Amino acid sequence: MALIVHKYGGTSMGSTERIRNVAKRVAKWHRAGHQMVVVPSAMSGETNRLLGLAKELAPAKASAAYERELDMLASTGEQASSALLAIALQAEGLDSVSYAGWQVPIRTNNAYTKARIESIDDTRVRADLSAGKVVIVTGFQGMDEQGNITTLGRGGSDTSAVAVAAAMKAQECLIYTDVDGVYTTDPRVVPEARRLKTVSFEEMLEMASLGSKVLQIRSVEFAGKYRVPLRVLSSFTPWDMDIVQEATSGTLITFEEDEHMEQAVVSGIAFNRDEAKIALRGVPDKPGIAYQILGAVAQANIDVDMIIQNVSKDGRTDFSFTVNRGDYAKAMDLLRNDVMKGLGVEDIVGDTKICKVSIVGIGMRSHVGIASKMFRALSEEGINIQMISTSEIKTSVVIDEKYIELAVRSLHKAFDLDQPPVAA
Amino acid sequence: MALIVHKYGGTSMGSTERIRNVAKRVAKWHRAGHQMVVVPSAMSGETNRLLGLAKELAPAKASAAYERELDMLASTGEQASSALLAIALQAEGLDSVSYAGWQVPIRTNNAYTKARIESIDDTRVRADLSAGKVVIVTGFQGMDEQGNITTLGRGGSDTSAVAVAAAMKAQECLIYTDVDGVYTTDPRVVPEARRLKTVSFEEMLEMASLGSKVLQIRSVEFAGKYRVPLRVLSSFTPWDMDIVQEATSGTLITFEEDEHMEQAVVSGIAFNRDEAKIALRGVPDKPGIAYQILGAVAQANIDVDMIIQNVSKDGRTDFSFTVNRGDYAKAMDLLRNDVMKGLGVEDIVGDTKICKVSIVGIGMRSHVGIASKMFRALSEEGINIQMISTSEIKTSVVIDEKYIELAVRSLHKAFDLDQPPVAA
Repeated sequence: MALIVHKYGGTSMGSTERIRNVAKRVAKWHRAGHQMVVVPSAMSGETNRLLGLAKELAPAKASAAYERELDMLASTGEQASSALLAIALQAEGLDSVSYAGWQVPIRTNNAYTKARIESIDDTRVRADLSAGKVVIVTGFQGMDEQGNITTLGRGGSDTSAVAVAAAMKAQECLIYTDVDGVYTTDPRVVPEARRLKTVSFEEMLEMASLGSKVLQIRSVEFAGKYRVPLRVLSSFTPWDMDIVQEATSGTLITFEEDEHMEQAVVSGIAFNRDEAKIALRGVPDKPGIAYQILGAVAQANIDVDMIIQNVSKDGRTDFSFTVNRGDYAKAMDLLRNDVMKGLGVEDIVGDTKICKVSIVGIGMRSHVGIASKMFRALSEEGINIQMISTSEIKTSVVIDEKYIELAVRSLHKAFDLDQPPVAA
Repeated sequence: MALIVHKYGGTSMGSTERIRNVAKRVAKWHRAGHQMVVVPSAMSGETNRLLGLAKELAPAKASAAYERELDMLASTGEQASSALLAIALQAEGLDSVSYAGWQVPIRTNNAYTKARIESIDDTRVRADLSAGKVVIVTGFQGMDEQGNITTLGRGGSDTSAVAVAAAMKAQECLIYTDVDGVYTTDPRVVPEARRLKTVSFEEMLEMASLGSKVLQIRSVEFAGKYRVPLRVLSSFTPWDMDIVQEATSGTLITFEEDEHMEQAVVSGIAFNRDEAKIALRGVPDKPGIAYQILGAVAQANIDVDMIIQNVSKDGRTDFSFTVNRGDYAKAMDLLRNDVMKGLGVEDIVGDTKICKVSIVGIGMRSHVGIASKMFRALSEEGINIQMISTSEIKTSVVIDEKYIELAVRSLHKAFDLDQPPVAA
């Protein structure tokens, strides 16, 4: 008898009919002898509905007090769907109980709307499991030291599920979603995209941070830190499918490299249309300049992604970085009004019509020439590369947005991702 | 500077526009120098929406485990509206914070869906008030000893507000609703119905229990027990109306008889269409018979309202009572199948087409002949009385449902309720 954590996304919980299917699936696992903890998201659309109401009423200036109330508000979506799932399980004849984050409790810091889990007390949940109950734990939320409700940010239910699995040393955490696994790239862009049976934790981390929306990045970090076996699979298979078949479907995120059966050099192509590029030209090349530029940006709560500084020439250098497209106007204003003149920067230009395309693969560690193969493939299509950034297991380039599909397709082909890899 | 509790019903919280108006009204009271605690209901329709989802999924047999989940679910409506009101107050430039029942905490017993408040710890709320904040406390809910969320039953937010006002020794608890006070009877039935400026606690208690839906009966009991000055008034007056005028509008529920300025003998006419009548004929008249009949009914969780037993004749008696119309079929089945034969009852008949009409007035204590005046008025209209029940300050009759409007109108006129009473 193993302890298994299931997580169901908002689409899987989107109607009472779907909740009933989730209950039937969970009941099947329970009857197969497993101890089951289930973490549901809010019913699809509910979080947006609630935050939409808040937006209509929002104060002119955001504050911690305001964000505290956003968390009070948004956390109700998961509390409601959790209670509904417990009811659906009771209708299946099972004992079931739901707990809000504060009831477990799941303790977090007090960074409202993007809190981090600090600890989970599993005493109550474990007692219920021993009594034969299916336990539902609300996703997305926790409680800070002062007893305020906090939420973990968009996609936070993934993190809740992984954190619960880690705290309880679950045998596996299954993330049921509306896709059937992790693909070599987005199948809407490349129809030949192939589902990966396994992907390494580090690759998944890069893919999540590079814009693949299958899993919240923090959940992957958590899984890595506590080595939680994580599987992404579809909730739209028939609930009564063979349980062994179901338990081996989707994509498994692995931690041991020798477990990683598919020895492709590049495992996937990730891309992100949500970025904008800002370049400062003729920046005086003196110590502390990067801090003076990016410190101001960070203080305005704007996340910076890629950062490139060119080799200096005549005591001046070019300095470029990318930000989330939604922060672009704010960042440009800030730089133009507060930063540029004080630093003696010659010019500042920006571009929102860019995208980032990345190749990711744990095999890149031990293979040379992978980046240049990428650059050649793009050059053969006449695609100009504007920025380059590399890490041990990924290479990212910024290109003109209009080439995104072409770039992803040609890279997918260049690295033979439409073919199953040869077993090592 | 006084501590004031405001309670706003679901209609008053029904949209962001209305929530904004509530915030403006509360801000006005705060700026006038009052410490403000506000208890909102869920946005209108929300509780029904949530319980509707639960009903679609409900197990065949209700249980405490199921009702626990109903409370988890339904309590989210008030948590969401409370957070929204706090946000709206912040938008008005005020410091504001919302607390769920468990955060206050408001402690209750564990009777899910109809819990009773046992204690309120006001430490946290009082500290916030001292810091100049407007505190929002979710209505309708609390927490039991084991940390489960409980709800107080339909209309429970009234009780939350009165309980908070009692615990904090508030100067007054103002119940803002979609009517502008307590009327001599329902103005939809009698256009001449007059708003009462004051009504005694005991009269209000009778009216609430007799089907007047202005206040939840338990909130009136609570107000009586802790002598909380309670005022019912409209939330649909302009939010910026003169505050002194607003503070004296509506209907005040009083506790001192000498405060009770309107010395009418009868203060109001209540009526209730939700009942059904059951009569057992030829019941052997021996000790324990009432218990044997009503014990079985109570065990099936059916509430009994009026109970009449006639004088015995030839060792047999007639025994009648009324139940909620929704329980009628269940009660009849139970009596026919389990009770009737064992007791040797001759016949059992029922009628769902009845209604109960009551006159209520604290002055009935010291005036004789009030009941006979009621019976005469009904008889003059040719209305047959089927059952009669009296208490110190009310007389109720059961009549054919089709006469309800006629009965209420004629009683309203017979007791001069359309005329302001002469001051004592």
